Amino acid sequence: MALIVQKYGGTSVGNPERISAVAVKVARARAAGHDLVVVVSAMSGETDRLIKLAKSLHPDPPARELDVLLATGEQTTIALLSMALERQGVPARSYTGHQVHIRTDNVHGKARILDIDDKRVRDDLKKGRVVVIAGFQGVDEEGDITTLGRGGSDTTAVAMAAALNADECQIYTDVDGVYTTDPRIVPTARRLDRITDEEMLEMASLGAKVLQIRSVEFAGKYKVPLRVLSSFEDGPGTLITYEENQMEAPLISGIAFNRDEAKLTIRGVPDRPGIAAQILGEVGKANINVDMIVQNVGADGSTDFTFTVHRTDYAKALDILRQVAQALKAREVSGDDKIVKISVVGVGMRSHAGIASTMFKALADEGINIQMISTSEIKISVVVDEKYLELGVRALHDAFGLDRAPAGQNKRKFEQASR
Amino acid sequence: MALIVQKYGGTSVGNPERISAVAVKVARARAAGHDLVVVVSAMSGETDRLIKLAKSLHPDPPARELDVLLATGEQTTIALLSMALERQGVPARSYTGHQVHIRTDNVHGKARILDIDDKRVRDDLKKGRVVVIAGFQGVDEEGDITTLGRGGSDTTAVAMAAALNADECQIYTDVDGVYTTDPRIVPTARRLDRITDEEMLEMASLGAKVLQIRSVEFAGKYKVPLRVLSSFEDGPGTLITYEENQMEAPLISGIAFNRDEAKLTIRGVPDRPGIAAQILGEVGKANINVDMIVQNVGADGSTDFTFTVHRTDYAKALDILRQVAQALKAREVSGDDKIVKISVVGVGMRSHAGIASTMFKALADEGINIQMISTSEIKISVVVDEKYLELGVRALHDAFGLDRAPAGQNKRKFEQASR
Repeated sequence: MALIVQKYGGTSVGNPERISAVAVKVARARAAGHDLVVVVSAMSGETDRLIKLAKSLHPDPPARELDVLLATGEQTTIALLSMALERQGVPARSYTGHQVHIRTDNVHGKARILDIDDKRVRDDLKKGRVVVIAGFQGVDEEGDITTLGRGGSDTTAVAMAAALNADECQIYTDVDGVYTTDPRIVPTARRLDRITDEEMLEMASLGAKVLQIRSVEFAGKYKVPLRVLSSFEDGPGTLITYEENQMEAPLISGIAFNRDEAKLTIRGVPDRPGIAAQILGEVGKANINVDMIVQNVGADGSTDFTFTVHRTDYAKALDILRQVAQALKAREVSGDDKIVKISVVGVGMRSHAGIASTMFKALADEGINIQMISTSEIKISVVVDEKYLELGVRALHDAFGLDRAPAGQNKRKFEQASR
Repeated sequence: MALIVQKYGGTSVGNPERISAVAVKVARARAAGHDLVVVVSAMSGETDRLIKLAKSLHPDPPARELDVLLATGEQTTIALLSMALERQGVPARSYTGHQVHIRTDNVHGKARILDIDDKRVRDDLKKGRVVVIAGFQGVDEEGDITTLGRGGSDTTAVAMAAALNADECQIYTDVDGVYTTDPRIVPTARRLDRITDEEMLEMASLGAKVLQIRSVEFAGKYKVPLRVLSSFEDGPGTLITYEENQMEAPLISGIAFNRDEAKLTIRGVPDRPGIAAQILGEVGKANINVDMIVQNVGADGSTDFTFTVHRTDYAKALDILRQVAQALKAREVSGDDKIVKISVVGVGMRSHAGIASTMFKALADEGINIQMISTSEIKISVVVDEKYLELGVRALHDAFGLDRAPAGQNKRKFEQASR
């Protein structure tokens, strides 16, 4: 008998029929002898409906009140799923973030979980109940409702699994695992049986979108066994692992990409210590996340500075950068929101040379110009014109032979099937 | 400068436009220098939508989970109204029942308020904020969400006004006050400038539906000045008063009626002490409210016992009564759910004889047969066949001259206008 935390996303609970189907799935796992905690998102479309409602009353809704509003989405789902479970003869109890004291900081819309009081949950489990918890939401020190941002339900599930020391945290979604890249772009893309948390982090942050990045960080920190599975079909999904086995590790695990990037450049900045902090500090103060950063020293003792932000933050970031440029007497500010980022990710990179040159050659062969390059230990990212997205991803998937399962992956597949 | 608690019902906040209109009204009252606490219901239709959703998952949704679900309705409204107020430049803060500790007992769906912690509200008022509170909901000792039952937002408003010692509690609704009877039935029905709380209680419990009965009880207990007004047009509404002024009191204030009654009779019950308690005890255990009760002693030492319940409880009550009849060896059980109750209400009744005979004669003149009679100090109720509802109400409105304002009412009207 294991303690399992399951998380079902918006599509999985998108209507009463699907909620009933989730209840059947949960009931089956319980019948197999497991203790179950189920974390759910708002029904698909509900969050967007609520945001639209908010915007009809205020063009820029106050963040505190928006959180009060959005939190109703998950609250609706927990009640409905608990009803569906009771209907299956499974005793169930629903809890909002508030009720299980998912305590967060007070950054409305992007709050971070600080701690969880798992007493009520443990009590209910002892009584044989399935516990249904609202994802995405928490409560700050003042007792105000907070939300964790889009995809925050994954983080709730992982945090819950960590707090309860669960045996596995299963994230049910509308895909059946993590793929070498988006199958809509590369039809031969392959489901990975396993992926390391580091690779997953790079994949997620680069737009693989299967799991929220914070949830993977959280899982890694507390070594929560995390598995991504499909709500709609049975299958082993993809397990996120924490140990590295170089023998088995494929060179490259996948090709990630991000369509929602925009690039900003400030030219002719005095090249002195602290200048990067000064520029990015102003951007950070406006709560804009900066992704890639590249700095080149020019010949005249001045420097050029380029960074990327989420496309929705582009206009705001450009405004800020213009003010900064004026203060710094910089030469020029420019930007481009028609770019994308493509990355190759793999822990195998650590012990193999030549990945970068294979990557750059594959892109060059297709005539794709690289605008920015950024590397980490296990990933290489490039920024290219958005029109090259599909072509670039396909070229790289092919260049690294990702449509063929490596020997190690086959072995794992066997282990998986015999679980 | 006064402290005013305003309550807006579902129709008043039925869509974003109406919520904005409420925000304008609240902003105006604040501009006049008042401190404001606003209690709101779910947007009209929302509660029904949620109940339908629940029933699609469980034919008899667990009460605890239904409360979790229904509470989202008011939570949505508080967030939206706060946004609309901020949009009007009015600083506002929303609170769920949980957040302002509207502590209730644990009778889900029909909870009673035990106490309120008004600290956060007072703090916000001191800071010049308008406080927006979710009506209808509270939290029990366990931290579980409870709801107060339909119309419970009125009770929330009055309880809040009592806790804050507010100068007035204004209930905004889709009618402009309390009428002598339903104007849809009697077009010459007249708005009352004032009504005593006792009369209001009798009117409300008998189906006048303007205010929830518990809210009036609550208001009476704490002497909260309570006013019913229209959300959609300006006007003085109807003030509920607590002192009686016999000089001014009209003989009869209004004709109330209730369509939703059903009648049950058990015949040939042994006539011994405790028998009524035994019968009604079983009904009460099933959480069915009994309204009118009539008992007649028969010639053979047995007794007949008739009572009315809400029509939705009819089938259940009939079942229970049949079991009781078997246990008591009663002769017969019968029932009728095609009845209505009509009542004349007025504190003037206390000092005037002849009201009952005027009432019975007016009904007899129209050939309406009276099936049950029940009287209290300030009301006389009769049960008649449902087909006589309109005819009966019109005949009584006419018989007591309610279309003409009495001298006392005119005087009050003047006082009202000069406020």
